[in-house]
Amino acid sequence: MIKIAVDCFGGDRSPYANIEGAINALKEIQDLYIILVGDEAAINSELSKYEYDKERIEVLHASEVITCNDTPTDAIRRKKDSSLVKAFDLLRNEDDVRGLVSIGSTGAILAGCVMKVGRIPGVKRPACCPILPTMNDGIVAICDSGANVDCQPEYLQQFAIMGSLYLNKAYNIENPRVALLNVGVEEEKGNALSKETFQLLKNNTPTVNFVGNMESRDLLTGEYDLIVCDGFNGNVLLKSTEGACLELMKLLKKTFTSSFKNKMGALLLKKGIYELKDKMDYNNYGGAVVLGIKKTVVKGHGSSKATSVYNCVKQAYNMEKNNLCETIAIEIAKLNEQMEANE
Amino acid sequence: MIKIAVDCFGGDRSPYANIEGAINALKEIQDLYIILVGDEAAINSELSKYEYDKERIEVLHASEVITCNDTPTDAIRRKKDSSLVKAFDLLRNEDDVRGLVSIGSTGAILAGCVMKVGRIPGVKRPACCPILPTMNDGIVAICDSGANVDCQPEYLQQFAIMGSLYLNKAYNIENPRVALLNVGVEEEKGNALSKETFQLLKNNTPTVNFVGNMESRDLLTGEYDLIVCDGFNGNVLLKSTEGACLELMKLLKKTFTSSFKNKMGALLLKKGIYELKDKMDYNNYGGAVVLGIKKTVVKGHGSSKATSVYNCVKQAYNMEKNNLCETIAIEIAKLNEQMEANE
Repeated sequence: MIKIAVDCFGGDRSPYANIEGAINALKEIQDLYIILVGDEAAINSELSKYEYDKERIEVLHASEVITCNDTPTDAIRRKKDSSLVKAFDLLRNEDDVRGLVSIGSTGAILAGCVMKVGRIPGVKRPACCPILPTMNDGIVAICDSGANVDCQPEYLQQFAIMGSLYLNKAYNIENPRVALLNVGVEEEKGNALSKETFQLLKNNTPTVNFVGNMESRDLLTGEYDLIVCDGFNGNVLLKSTEGACLELMKLLKKTFTSSFKNKMGALLLKKGIYELKDKMDYNNYGGAVVLGIKKTVVKGHGSSKATSVYNCVKQAYNMEKNNLCETIAIEIAKLNEQMEANE
Repeated sequence: MIKIAVDCFGGDRSPYANIEGAINALKEIQDLYIILVGDEAAINSELSKYEYDKERIEVLHASEVITCNDTPTDAIRRKKDSSLVKAFDLLRNEDDVRGLVSIGSTGAILAGCVMKVGRIPGVKRPACCPILPTMNDGIVAICDSGANVDCQPEYLQQFAIMGSLYLNKAYNIENPRVALLNVGVEEEKGNALSKETFQLLKNNTPTVNFVGNMESRDLLTGEYDLIVCDGFNGNVLLKSTEGACLELMKLLKKTFTSSFKNKMGALLLKKGIYELKDKMDYNNYGGAVVLGIKKTVVKGHGSSKATSVYNCVKQAYNMEKNNLCETIAIEIAKLNEQMEANE
């Protein structure tokens, strides 16, 4: 039985989407056990709407909620009875609680990961790793997408290892193609950080399938499985891609409704456009994970629907089922031994 | 009379698009004089197709062409009879040749700017500044978009000044709204570079209308006129936005042709979609400029059509007509005096 804590508060659609998503995952996965954390009365009232295996679910009461307006580290320190902190405490104190899914504030979740769960020994910096859908129906992961805004080449080397293992364990991708975000594909391109990282990945990271530099315009083409970069660049990459898609869809919507003829055209295309929107919908792709900490933490998008929460829970389950954290610990230890031997 | 050199070779549609664009600008602007640089026979053969004021155009022969396969600095040093180097030599040696438009290799153009034209005294680093269309029919500029991959806060401070003056002189934007690219809008967000730059722009750059941090997802919303960042992040920002729009348009095209019903819908929407594509077409918005050098240099997109070259020539003309380089020299000198006084 794999035990996952689900933070039921936080997120635009909480608690109902969080609870519905958790229950759907519970129905599908037979060796999953869920602890719903948050206001007991509210959770029980939602739970009464569903049929589910009562032996595999429990509720842990928490009276407070951390919002995006709270300062992350302060919130983790002070809001001791919040659903997020109580879920983190479970992760910290209960050996058999293996994972946590939250839709809450990214900053607070990252702070909780470091303060409550702790780094895997040998990991220099835990990193945030979201996934995006590619144009050929695959996915691409970005590591780091914002946890570390100032990085050393050795951090990025570890991101490459952790991200590769994640894609393998959670998505069953064999030998993920890892590229370094850069301003050009040629080996000599880049800033001080990318030039040094290139050499580390090329010469000193045998377990990673490093395919070279990539340019941000190729993020969605499906040529790469994992993009490695510092958190500042990863954040710019992720958000500008999301922003461009969003703004373009808005423009399209405007075009679709700007005349009678256009409206008729859009009506005929309705199904096709919905399929396209569905393809691009993050709800279908789970959340961002924090790699390099001792247990599994998945963070869903703030406006996650039940489908997204369901996918996040499945993702956390897969990571634990396939022992991702243990494998990262082993591989990082090997890397550090090898790096020391090279010195 | 304002003299502009046009490099007729380089670019997927050269020389014909370059020559057609230059002639169209010549027809519209009465005090413009153009020097077409490149293979004389080829240029004259193209010229014979047009009617134009022969008093305001001349041809300067060059036998070679710099391609994207040439190493930039090597090419500028060795390909002495290339159209780009000969155009740069005009800029360097002839006082009255004020600007250069080229569709050639970005690297070679940047190398030429530094090696042949030279920095304005007091400018720490020349920067590349492209523009993009926004969703509310305006434009947004990015400075730097790739010339300087490792930056100091003082470079970004100067980018803010030079970019503001550029938008004012070339596009007549009063008091451009300048934002700093960051991972969040709050003042305390960011990496070491952005935190220090924020303070410089907030407290020590009175001539710039600094509106604070911005997130990359808001690039196209029209909230900002100029985004200031280091060249690595600027490159990621620019190319991921372009890439996302391109990939989404490809997906749409696929949807539009995937069934008979969709094809009918797309047919009705044809005009609307063309208008949207036109809005997003870089050909309608001129090129990227290099700011901080002694004369005007505009670099058009590699696949520029005649319209784009025409816009680039007009852009170069406007910059020179309004004395952008002189104004930058004055304002940078003032800034440096003030920064020294503060020390």
